This record gives sequence, structure tokens and C-alpha cells, in this order.
Amino acid sequence: MFRVKKTKIPTVILKDFQKFASGYTKVHKEPDGPCVKTEIPGPKSKALFKELSDIQQCGSVNLFTDYEKSVGNYIADADGNILLDTYTQISSLPLGYNHPELLNTFSNDSNIRALVNRPALGVFPGIDWPQKLRDVLLSVAPKGCNQVMTMMCGACSVESAFKAAFIWYCTNKRGGKTTFSDEELKSVMDNKAPGAPKLAIMSFKAPLLQGAFHGRTFGALATTRSKPIHKLDFPSFDWPCAIFPHYKYPLEEHKRENEEQDKKSLAHVCELFEKWEKKGIPVAGVIVEPIQSEGGDNHASPEFFQQLQAICASKCAALILDEVQTGCGPTGKMWCHEHFNLPSPPDLVTFSKKMLTGGYYARPEFKPPQAYRIFNTWMGDPSKLILLEQVLKVIKTEKLLDLVQCTGKVLKCGLHELECEFPDKINSVRGRGTFLAFDATSPEMRDKIMGNLKKNGVLGGVCGTTSVRLRPALTFAPKHAEIFLDILKKSLQQIK
Amino acid sequence: MFRVKKTKIPTVILKDFQKFASGYTKVHKEPDGPCVKTEIPGPKSKALFKELSDIQQCGSVNLFTDYEKSVGNYIADADGNILLDTYTQISSLPLGYNHPELLNTFSNDSNIRALVNRPALGVFPGIDWPQKLRDVLLSVAPKGCNQVMTMMCGACSVESAFKAAFIWYCTNKRGGKTTFSDEELKSVMDNKAPGAPKLAIMSFKAPLLQGAFHGRTFGALATTRSKPIHKLDFPSFDWPCAIFPHYKYPLEEHKRENEEQDKKSLAHVCELFEKWEKKGIPVAGVIVEPIQSEGGDNHASPEFFQQLQAICASKCAALILDEVQTGCGPTGKMWCHEHFNLPSPPDLVTFSKKMLTGGYYARPEFKPPQAYRIFNTWMGDPSKLILLEQVLKVIKTEKLLDLVQCTGKVLKCGLHELECEFPDKINSVRGRGTFLAFDATSPEMRDKIMGNLKKNGVLGGVCGTTSVRLRPALTFAPKHAEIFLDILKKSLQQIK
Repeated sequence: MFRVKKTKIPTVILKDFQKFASGYTKVHKEPDGPCVKTEIPGPKSKALFKELSDIQQCGSVNLFTDYEKSVGNYIADADGNILLDTYTQISSLPLGYNHPELLNTFSNDSNIRALVNRPALGVFPGIDWPQKLRDVLLSVAPKGCNQVMTMMCGACSVESAFKAAFIWYCTNKRGGKTTFSDEELKSVMDNKAPGAPKLAIMSFKAPLLQGAFHGRTFGALATTRSKPIHKLDFPSFDWPCAIFPHYKYPLEEHKRENEEQDKKSLAHVCELFEKWEKKGIPVAGVIVEPIQSEGGDNHASPEFFQQLQAICASKCAALILDEVQTGCGPTGKMWCHEHFNLPSPPDLVTFSKKMLTGGYYARPEFKPPQAYRIFNTWMGDPSKLILLEQVLKVIKTEKLLDLVQCTGKVLKCGLHELECEFPDKINSVRGRGTFLAFDATSPEMRDKIMGNLKKNGVLGGVCGTTSVRLRPALTFAPKHAEIFLDILKKSLQQIK
Repeated sequence: MFRVKKTKIPTVILKDFQKFASGYTKVHKEPDGPCVKTEIPGPKSKALFKELSDIQQCGSVNLFTDYEKSVGNYIADADGNILLDTYTQISSLPLGYNHPELLNTFSNDSNIRALVNRPALGVFPGIDWPQKLRDVLLSVAPKGCNQVMTMMCGACSVESAFKAAFIWYCTNKRGGKTTFSDEELKSVMDNKAPGAPKLAIMSFKAPLLQGAFHGRTFGALATTRSKPIHKLDFPSFDWPCAIFPHYKYPLEEHKRENEEQDKKSLAHVCELFEKWEKKGIPVAGVIVEPIQSEGGDNHASPEFFQQLQAICASKCAALILDEVQTGCGPTGKMWCHEHFNLPSPPDLVTFSKKMLTGGYYARPEFKPPQAYRIFNTWMGDPSKLILLEQVLKVIKTEKLLDLVQCTGKVLKCGLHELECEFPDKINSVRGRGTFLAFDATSPEMRDKIMGNLKKNGVLGGVCGTTSVRLRPALTFAPKHAEIFLDILKKSLQQIK
């Protein structure tokens, strides 16, 4: 069994979470560990893949999952393999598989009705909707963001936040006037200025690495700078993209260089503001992930975000924090930006994934002055809020944010030990809570590590060109961390 | 009671649907008719509106709904009013409220698990997913469209169909080659050609009327030409917009003029293909609604759509039929374009709303040659397919498409009688199945009609500048039609 040597986890914390060691309830006992019976994907997954590829392009499919048999932190596949899941449906399962509290949610008659009578929330919300928004979404709202809009998924949430930013920016330019000129009303129907103005949203790329990921609808995609395959053949907007800091690890040994990275990035942001202003496409907002995830788990310091906020304020542009992946607890706080001590609340904060519903929070001044501007038929789905309500209850009663911090320490210490032991294979351990990553020394090395992890019973995720990212459920406990570290050690040892 | 005089509905058909006259089951008996107790919105709805407006811009809210008390074709509001619903959550409730077959869906344990264990469908689909796609979505696929992708909502479905069209167009331009040049791979990360090429999607506007509606995300919104408020302050693409036919009614009295409208529109389509080609922004696809809904229920003939398909084929552009509002039965056929006798299958057909899940169908050549090009975290939601499966079962066993045709005849005959009786108030009755509309003689007249309808117990919908649209559930029976026609007559009489 892997034992973390470097840092001691206070025993009192560990004891508090001993219940997680053997699965969180008696009814839904997790297995003691992974169990691999076939190659992965095995013959049954391969047969299903063939079936599915008759119906759609499915080259991205990794394995077919048996959702009946998956439990807690363990995912079961079509071939009877059981893997410790550190990726959890691209970071979107807050409590793992088949959590009993979630399974019980729809034994309630009125919750079933919410599933069946899906409203057009913008026109005919249910009588319990304002209360539901307060009890669920506003109960965990980032401080200072007392407005919330619900949407269906991350990309729509990001696009709606862009709209809120554009509306706010243009209303400010009109000096607060809430009517439109005839020329605006006419030109907009031809997709032309001034009604459809030339305006931009700035995002970030990492030098030598991949960059921001904000979704794949056309507006969001214009700010996404991850992989070419996400963007090829699609027309896009002429929007600026600033260099994101590229830190060296361990942080304490590269303080000066990393500060330089912050400075360089912020200077580039200022430069692009000027450049696009001159081009006649002013920047109305800047969108940034608190941790650039898909792009390679690229971090920036609290000071970077504080200064970025100040720059946006000075340019009268909105700062949009994209917490689709970082939100809902994996960094040990509800919202990752809580680690940054921002002097004032962010303008807009987008969410989805672990929050189960998409949407965004906003400061009050981002409420559009007119109706029907950020709108669609469904505008979210009340049944997802019902599930989220249970999730938030479990996070609170089972102290899952504390658990994330505790497990995160075990994981990070263990990873540090492994990077010392295998410096020719992995390095740059980084992250907050259990939202952790490390780099392989090459893309080929990463392929080998991921292949071995899977063979040895761990389902992992990758990001950037050489990074391995950990995205376990919030119920991932020190016990799971030890199993993971054991298997990672074995997987590294197996690479000759 | 309103009795349709002009056209006789065959008694045998009416008899077959007598059960619908008193609600479809004993357990879920519908009221005998609407019951209005307060002004609408009443005091409770107004108080809730105030609550909600602290949290978000909610000026679009019409009334707060009591989803527990709403049943079948009747919607109940916060103040205890019960209205006959001819709008059904912007046309998105296939079977009305609290249908017993839907309420029973999640008594099944494995269906509950599908709700709780939401997969990232593009990476870890469930073992039952290929079968589910076949049993549910492919069982009602438009002929010749054997590919299907699931998405979350209408706008995402439209944007994904655009992507499929762009990928297909660019792959063709490359002569089928499935690799990319270094220049493409590099330029796309800066949102520049050739990787992010200048390409367009053509859509339609109606002269004097409003135009197409395809959604509100930035790609979809560039083809939406409905109201300025949907588009103001948002940057957009320089994409062409052709004139849609503008018919006069009754059709049989305006054959020649309406044919001229078709010709004019199709000539404009050809002209715009040329013009945008010269601009250096070739048109890769044309998107069109079989009935332009939000824009005013504007119709075009089968011949128009046949010729539009031929033009697209000759220009090597994709034809995308947006059946988000027309799909799933309201026109009396599963897909509205089945009325058009197209010589070959449409390239792409988008759906959402009554289908409960978003997505698109496609001809096999629109399957992208590479993975991860049309992709996001969730890619739909299996729990919505489970509900849709029940919906399709009910449509079949209860012969709802026949019912739609039957009720549609009753409604249309009645509306024709009313337009003869009140020519100074309404005209231009049109539509297929129960997907019907008529025009008021002015926007003010429409306001009066809508106000009276609500006072008298009917919740209706509007579109365009002067149109009233009917979007009842598929369970709307002749009995409901008669109640509606009675109330509409009364509402028209009340306008002095």
C-alpha cells in the first residue's frame, strides 16, 4: 500500500473520513479496489463501438459503461472490468456513480412531475421556481453575484455570459440609455453595425502549450484555443487571444520566473486591448478559466487574477470567470476563484458539469435592461436543480469540501514523491484540492502511463499535450488516493 | 357550443377519438373546460414575479404555473386559474401536462439510474446506448437520414448541424482528403483562414414580415432574422439572407401570385449564392424551417422546397431543414417535410422541443471523417430519450398523428368560418395539422384578441407582428378544438 511520507495528514482529519474508506453507505458498498478482466476496450465494448459507428461518428468513445454496476468512485464497463475513476465523465459527476441520496431523489412525486412537465422557464416558470433558485443556486452563489440565469450546458452558459457582457458594455456606451436608434434596429437584421457591432471577447492561449477551452458553439469556440480539431473548417470571429502564464514547478523554486510570466501575460492583455480598439473591434469582455483545464491544467497566481480584474475594470470590460470545470468543489472551495482573494466580485461566473445545470452568476449591473435578450425555449431544466439540491446537501452534511482538501493533500504529497522517484517520466505536479495534474516528459511517455494506468485499473484523463489530469468525484477519499498512487507507481515502474 | 359547418369530419374518425373528449384516462381526468377566477397574471403570479425579478431579468414571464394541478391540455396558474393551453410551453410539450405514461416512466429503477449517472456520451456511453438510439431516435428518422447526433437544445442542434455542413463542404473542397495542411492547423488557432475559413450559412427573412428563427447562440443567431431584440448588441457573421415567399390566403384564390413569390425567393437564393461567392464567403449550407414559425407562420409550397433542394445540390451546399418546432407530429406527420415529397432525403434535419432531446439527423455522407469535431461533455441526455421513448409509444398506440389530422380539420374549418364572420378582425387562416395560425388585422387588434382569449380561458401564442399561432399538444382533440373556437368567437365578438 502506498504510504505518503513527506507530509503528515492530521490524523483527526483522516479519522473524520474513515467512513469513506469502505464506501459511503452499507447499501452501496464500493469494491475494495479495481478489477481488470480483459483488455480495455474489451470484446463487448468493441462490438458496441461497431454498432454505434453505424449511427454516428464515435471515434471519441473510450469504453462502454455499465451504469447499473458502476458504484461510487468505480466505473464498470461492458466487459465486467471495474476501474477506479479519476476522470468522472469529464469532471461532471459530483458524487460518483449511483449515490443513494440521488437515487432517492425521484421517489418524491412532485420531483417526478418536474421531470415530466418541463417548462419554458422564461415564460411559464413553476410556482416554486424563485424559491428553488434561492434555495439551490443562490445558496452557493459567489459573493457579490446575486443574479443567476440557468442554461442547459457549459457552452450555452458561456455564450449567454458573453451576451450579458455585450449588453452591459453597449448600454454603458449609450450612457445607460435603454432604447435603440432606428439605425441600430435596422442594421442588426442584416447582421451589420451599429446594431450588430464589431466587438470582441478576449481569451487566453498558453505559449508552447494549448490554451483556453470555453465550449464549442460558434461564440464560445471563438474564445476556445485548445486543439485545432475543435475548430477546423468553422468560420470564426476576429477576437484577440492573450498569452497565459506558463509556470515552472515546483513554484517555490521558480518564483521570479513565474512572476515574470504573470507580468508578460498582463502586458499582453493591455497590448491587445489597445490593438483591437485601434482595429475598430473593442474588447467588451475577457474570459478566463481559474485553472486552464483542457489546455493542460495551466495555473496562474492570485495576484495575476487580481491584476487582470483591475485591467478589465480600467478598460470598462467585463471579467468572465469560466468555472464550468473548476466550480462546485474540486479545488476544495465551492468556486476556484475564492482562492484568489479578488478585491471585488467577478462580473460573471459561468458554471455547468458538476453543477448538473448550466448557467451563470452575475453582479446586479449585468441584469439586461430589457426582456427576451438572454432567452430560449427551456432556459435550463428544473429537474437538474432538484438533483443539484441533493448534491449540495450531501456536500454539506458529509463535509465533502473538507474531504477534497484532505484527499488532495494525500494525493499531492504522493505525486510529489513519485515525481522525485521518476524524474525521467513525470514532473510539474500542481493543483488545488483534488483538481491536480502532472506532466509526462513527452506525449509518448504520457500514452504509456495512461495505457498502464488503465491496464492496472485506473481510468484517467489527459489534457494539454503531455499532462495527466485528476478529476475524481468529491467523494474520492484518502483510501482511493492511496489505491491510485499505488497503481500510478506500479504503472511508472512498468515503463522500462 | 361551436359547431363547424363548412366541412364535415367523417364521424368514424371523430368516434375513434371520443375518449379524448373527457381526458385520456380516468385517473387523470381533465376539467370540462377552463375556469378563470382572477385577472391574469393574478396577485400570486405578480408577487412571484417580483420575487424572481430580484434574481434575474424576467420581463418575459407570462404567468407562474402550478405544474401539480395542470393536466392534459389545461394549464393551472398560481392564482387557481385553469386555461386551455394552445401554446404548450412554446410548442415543447408533446402530450400535455402530467401524462400518466410519462409519470410512470421513472418508476423503473434502471431509468432512475440513467437520471443520476449522466454520462459523457461521446466518451463513455452506456451499454444500452446504441440500442436506445435505434429504438427511439432512428425509429422515427426521416427517410434516408440514418445518422443521428444528440444535443441538449435546439440552438446547439442547429450549431452542430452547421458544423456537419461546414466539415462536409470543406472535405469535398479537399477532394475527400481527411488530413489538414500545416497552414490550416496553424491559422485556425488564430481564428483565421484557411483553418477557420470564410464560409456562410444562408437563411431566410420574410419581406414586410419577420424572418427565420434558428436559435440564439452566436452561430444560430447569425441565421436568425426574427426580432431586433434577439440580436441587438451582439457581433455577428456576414451571412446572406434570402427573401422567403409571402403568400396570400386563401391559397386557392392567389395561386399565381403565390407562385410568383416562390420564384422570386428562389431567384434571390441563386443571386445570393453568386454574390457571396464573389465576396469570398461561399455559402456552405442553407437552413430553412418547413414553416417559418417565430417569424409569423410563413409557409412555402412543396414545389418551393423541392426547387430549393435542387439549387443547393447544384451549388454543392447542404440543405438543413430546421424541424425544431415543426417536428414530432404537430403537422399531422412526424416531420413536416414529409408533406413536401422531396425527390431525395434532406441533408440534415434538426430537432428539439417536442422531441425532448435536441439533435440532428443526417445523410450518411455528413458523418465527420474525424472524431472530436462535433462533440461536447454531455452530448445530450439519455434520460430525455427515455421520456421520448414513452412519447413515441403513446403517439403510436393512441394514433395521435391521426388525431392531429382530425382535430386540425375541425380547427381549420372553424377558423375559416370565423375569418368569414369577422373579416375586419382576422384573416389568412393557414397551416397543417394543428400547427395553425391566422392573422389579426393589426398588432393592436392582435393584442385585443390575445387579451380576451386569456380572460375567457385560453392561453395562446403569437408570432410575427400580427399572427396568432396554435401550438397545442398532440392530445388536443376535437372537443378541445370546439372549446377553443367557442372562446375565440366570443373573444372576437367582445371587440367592438
